Amino acid sequence: MSENYTNPLRTAVLGVTGYSGAELVRLLLDHPRLAAHSPLLLGRSGSETVALTSIHPQLSGLPNADSLSVVPFDLKLLVDEKIDILFLATPHEQSREDVPAAVAAGLRVIDLSGAWRLHNDANRAVYKLHDADPALAAQLQTEAVYGSPELHGEQIKTARLIANPGCYATSIILALAPLVRANVIDLDYGIIADAKSGVSGAGKAPTPTTHFMYAADNLSAYAVFGHRHTGELLEQLHLDASQIQFTPHLLPIPRGILSTIYVRLAQPGSILNIQSLYDEFYANAPLVRIRRSPALPQIQHVVRTAFCDLGFQLSPDGKRLVIISCLDNLLKGAASQAVENMNLMAGFSQSEGLR
Amino acid sequence: MSENYTNPLRTAVLGVTGYSGAELVRLLLDHPRLAAHSPLLLGRSGSETVALTSIHPQLSGLPNADSLSVVPFDLKLLVDEKIDILFLATPHEQSREDVPAAVAAGLRVIDLSGAWRLHNDANRAVYKLHDADPALAAQLQTEAVYGSPELHGEQIKTARLIANPGCYATSIILALAPLVRANVIDLDYGIIADAKSGVSGAGKAPTPTTHFMYAADNLSAYAVFGHRHTGELLEQLHLDASQIQFTPHLLPIPRGILSTIYVRLAQPGSILNIQSLYDEFYANAPLVRIRRSPALPQIQHVVRTAFCDLGFQLSPDGKRLVIISCLDNLLKGAASQAVENMNLMAGFSQSEGLR
Amino acid sequence: MSENYTNPLRTAVLGVTGYSGAELVRLLLDHPRLAAHSPLLLGRSGSETVALTSIHPQLSGLPNADSLSVVPFDLKLLVDEKIDILFLATPHEQSREDVPAAVAAGLRVIDLSGAWRLHNDANRAVYKLHDADPALAAQLQTEAVYGSPELHGEQIKTARLIANPGCYATSIILALAPLVRANVIDLDYGIIADAKSGVSGAGKAPTPTTHFMYAADNLSAYAVFGHRHTGELLEQLHLDASQIQFTPHLLPIPRGILSTIYVRLAQPGSILNIQSLYDEFYANAPLVRIRRSPALPQIQHVVRTAFCDLGFQLSPDGKRLVIISCLDNLLKGAASQAVENMNLMAGFSQSEGLR
Amino acid sequence: MSENYTNPLRTAVLGVTGYSGAELVRLLLDHPRLAAHSPLLLGRSGSETVALTSIHPQLSGLPNADSLSVVPFDLKLLVDEKIDILFLATPHEQSREDVPAAVAAGLRVIDLSGAWRLHNDANRAVYKLHDADPALAAQLQTEAVYGSPELHGEQIKTARLIANPGCYATSIILALAPLVRANVIDLDYGIIADAKSGVSGAGKAPTPTTHFMYAADNLSAYAVFGHRHTGELLEQLHLDASQIQFTPHLLPIPRGILSTIYVRLAQPGSILNIQSLYDEFYANAPLVRIRRSPALPQIQHVVRTAFCDLGFQLSPDGKRLVIISCLDNLLKGAASQAVENMNLMAGFSQSEGLR
Repeated sequence: MSENYTNPLRTAVLGVTGYSGAELVRLLLDHPRLAAHSPLLLGRSGSETVALTSIHPQLSGLPNADSLSVVPFDLKLLVDEKIDILFLATPHEQSREDVPAAVAAGLRVIDLSGAWRLHNDANRAVYKLHDADPALAAQLQTEAVYGSPELHGEQIKTARLIANPGCYATSIILALAPLVRANVIDLDYGIIADAKSGVSGAGKAPTPTTHFMYAADNLSAYAVFGHRHTGELLEQLHLDASQIQFTPHLLPIPRGILSTIYVRLAQPGSILNIQSLYDEFYANAPLVRIRRSPALPQIQHVVRTAFCDLGFQLSPDGKRLVIISCLDNLLKGAASQAVENMNLMAGFSQSEGLR
Repeated sequence: MSENYTNPLRTAVLGVTGYSGAELVRLLLDHPRLAAHSPLLLGRSGSETVALTSIHPQLSGLPNADSLSVVPFDLKLLVDEKIDILFLATPHEQSREDVPAAVAAGLRVIDLSGAWRLHNDANRAVYKLHDADPALAAQLQTEAVYGSPELHGEQIKTARLIANPGCYATSIILALAPLVRANVIDLDYGIIADAKSGVSGAGKAPTPTTHFMYAADNLSAYAVFGHRHTGELLEQLHLDASQIQFTPHLLPIPRGILSTIYVRLAQPGSILNIQSLYDEFYANAPLVRIRRSPALPQIQHVVRTAFCDLGFQLSPDGKRLVIISCLDNLLKGAASQAVENMNLMAGFSQSEGLR
Repeated sequence: MSENYTNPLRTAVLGVTGYSGAELVRLLLDHPRLAAHSPLLLGRSGSETVALTSIHPQLSGLPNADSLSVVPFDLKLLVDEKIDILFLATPHEQSREDVPAAVAAGLRVIDLSGAWRLHNDANRAVYKLHDADPALAAQLQTEAVYGSPELHGEQIKTARLIANPGCYATSIILALAPLVRANVIDLDYGIIADAKSGVSGAGKAPTPTTHFMYAADNLSAYAVFGHRHTGELLEQLHLDASQIQFTPHLLPIPRGILSTIYVRLAQPGSILNIQSLYDEFYANAPLVRIRRSPALPQIQHVVRTAFCDLGFQLSPDGKRLVIISCLDNLLKGAASQAVENMNLMAGFSQSEGLR
Repeated sequence: MSENYTNPLRTAVLGVTGYSGAELVRLLLDHPRLAAHSPLLLGRSGSETVALTSIHPQLSGLPNADSLSVVPFDLKLLVDEKIDILFLATPHEQSREDVPAAVAAGLRVIDLSGAWRLHNDANRAVYKLHDADPALAAQLQTEAVYGSPELHGEQIKTARLIANPGCYATSIILALAPLVRANVIDLDYGIIADAKSGVSGAGKAPTPTTHFMYAADNLSAYAVFGHRHTGELLEQLHLDASQIQFTPHLLPIPRGILSTIYVRLAQPGSILNIQSLYDEFYANAPLVRIRRSPALPQIQHVVRTAFCDLGFQLSPDGKRLVIISCLDNLLKGAASQAVENMNLMAGFSQSEGLR
């Protein structure tokens, strides 16, 4: 399907006011393979046209940024403009509402929200979704590809609808997928994923918990059981709910996630074996970096990059493994992973425009 | 008037949800000279009674804090409870509304808002105040004492209404008052007060500029001309608007103000003369600390203390003086200065309960 | 033994330059039951006498602080001054060196270092201690009481040598002790303690990892296996090394620890049962606060307080328990816990001077 | 002279361990016009060869970064490799030592230190420089061009030695140059430049003032009179020392400078006139952004960009002007300004590789 794009790719972004949307626009403006006026920027249908730099003054001076406007969403406009790929960086309710018509109109869609990530109805219940056309939504849901290039690269290339993964989920899934695939975890013991995220993960709306006075000089756990990214872990790692415990925390930093993941190995291992297993799994993954023990990932190494860094420590008896996984929640956890998906859909190199 | 208080002092606080109100409650709970059930805590009239620790869980475990409730404001209750001094940590509109009746009912009042600080009508216009009884308000305004213990200690002792100073204003007034009193500034050159404050100064309401993502890793100037604390500077320092330029900035820290103040001396001075002038002016001020050059105040030294720290550097030619002034905006800039005022009104030592 | 102290208590502090030492001095200066010139402040033997406020300018203005000097350590001076209790806030090597003579001279000692905390030789090996008189050291080691007032209050009252607990260890031990005592944990699954500490825990020496540029906007794991506080967990909780996994992280904040602790219950429980178990265990502990689910501790609630806050979440099936434990590493994790020990040794109320 | 570079440009960097050096390497690795193996990375002569990513693990994964080594400095190697431009990101003593030989060997040099910035001997005294060959050094000093592309673009194109400007100096000079050139400031009143910088400006060496515990939650003024960037202001703006007062402060953030600059206008002006004056002066400056009042620059808008942002507020009487100037101290204040200089020297577009 990638042969469609002998011409420069034409993209559009619906939802540019939030943090992920702004990062996505920045990446697309800088991308070497897009059409001259790409991306087309879209606000809610019926909204007023405004200059991009009036929303994000920090983007002024970037190539083309000062001439870009955000226009109201209109499917006809997208078709007329021959948009190839539409990104949505919108709340999940809006994604669930706008995606079916967009796909029906022939657009390929990359949705950054949680609307289409979960195939199991029970898992998806946390999103409280209401579909105008439940049958169509169910069919699209079945077709939607979970946009993890490391796990589903082949399917992504030809997909019509990509559900871009959650930020916490990406950090944990990339840390565990090689072990799960190799079947080396003793799942009877359960996996613990203790994750910590910067405040941008909580969104741009001013709330009591995003207030500087709450978040600064603080650390707090939340959603100790039942965070809605849990469903992604279960489905992508083929686990049941008793086999993994995921607890998020709010870090006093703007961006970045560090997940500390504790597993028990079925057989005592060595750190070299573990690293080999990851090296092999990620041999063709340009945006996953494997750290050599005793070096470990840290948040500063990944912030404002498209990388996920993974590192390991093993107990002296070789039975207990701790995996540290770091990424930038707005990039590998959102916008740059969306661009990876676009690259694969368009037949570009996976990391085009991301290093 | 302080002879009233042979019995332990009975206090009440209206407005405990904000940062200054919470600090004030903490200080009063810890004060050695208050009556057993003091302070009485008050919310807006008609509000529900709630436990103090449900609003401020961090106060749990402090003496008496777990048994305290916040009850709806009711003037009759204050009279029945024989409250001596009522604090208001409320928006200025509410202070302007509630204070006249409270004073009329015989309470002495310390208001932490800007409602009663300015005697000049033009200066006060920035607050857009509307009085139910303008004549009564005007009379009270005349009577209100600006609650700077270092400047107006004698008047405070017998005052019925204290207008507790603004945080920026306190830091700048204490830095300049000795020089103004000694008449050593060449005012033709104008005074520059470049002030920087932590985010608590912007209040507890979640807004775009108090969002962690805006304030963290940032610095921004605001209200470059015309910040509403300017009127306090003009009135208390007997300056006109062309003689002082005050520009505030938002610091990425929870609390603390540092003001860097630039003045031209009428006659070349020496750092020792300058220090002597401050030593003398603040000889009886227990909560102003004069740093010896080359040591300078810094925000960490005053945060969570009731002190204002002052320090100096003089140009080699002895003509240009830079004064650094630091205080905690929630304490010396609000709650602890209010307690100083209470101490003076009650005949206690000025720093009772504050060190 | 507390009957010794009918007179005001006389204390001394060896080591006041570090963060814990400074906090300890601040607490003792503010303590209502100490002798007028207490504490006596001591530097290394042979050091110069310096003013306290030249080391810690922020203490200036506190009662007595401006008149205090730090004098060279000299055992004879301590005896002449009739010091009752000597605190050491020194590196563990120095504590191991100076404590035996001090105890021999009749002083009671509270040591904040790790020198005397571990009774098991293998656990203590991480400290690489060398004793001038191994037999005497071994005897003192046997006698040393681990200074956790909640666990060993009775022994502390009459102890000659208190080994004040480590900061991480305190946060984890207080979180687990009630469960261990009640024997409700299924230890086959292992306990995970994922702990996060502010930078003050790394000490005052400027190093690459305490540099602002390393620590700010970052999070990193370290000592994933084998942190030296692990021995305290094992000994105080009667666990073996395979039963608990403790991993510390460096938080970009000045102070505070939050530990997230994962345990599997032997029998499915209810959150109310769990809370009751903690309520009972800590019924007489004035400085442990039990949060009611769904409220959870957070670092801001404990910073600059002497409290340890504990809270809980239980999985829907009642089998997996997550405990959140917060304290200030310099207070309940060091200086204020030392004062608790002093209070018990002197027959005072445990929380005297700490709320 | 730019006709030399029909072939891809060959560059070398001496000094890559510091913050500016690392940023410079990152920019050069990403620059579209450099030779394939450029830059050549150099440590002190006699140092060991080490992998770049062992010094800066966060650079791993960037194009070519993993294959780069830092080799010992050796002039012969530079000549053999046909290096066109040598950057030095070294202490000023080392720059003063190594630059003369490099220039003599035919290399063009861009020095990021303060070694060659000051033409006036008295101003340069603060650097305490010792030259092996004073006559040669004096001649080079005369020839050295102050590397501000906005002020000296033409001279830079053909220069052999560029003295890359200081970070504070850049922020203040760019803010004032248009006003000085237009002769609109009343210099009798003096200019006040109150500047605030993130901690990276203090360098990578761990010191008491770069310790997280000192810098975090703090603000402090330093070098109130006599900061060594003052000489650059005087020389580039043609002022004498009594006409400008520059005071720096240490901000609790990793990077970014905001300078608040106060001037008195000779004639009352309007904000539109002021903006026009800046628009005209910077009409061909691709990396200076002029904000429209009431919008003002803030640090977040420039961090990790090559821009300097300028904004203005004018007093109601049109006489007092406040200029806010923001830039990233490691980029426009160091590394990216160095790349601008390289671009001009090589005949590239000034902002090539910087947006």
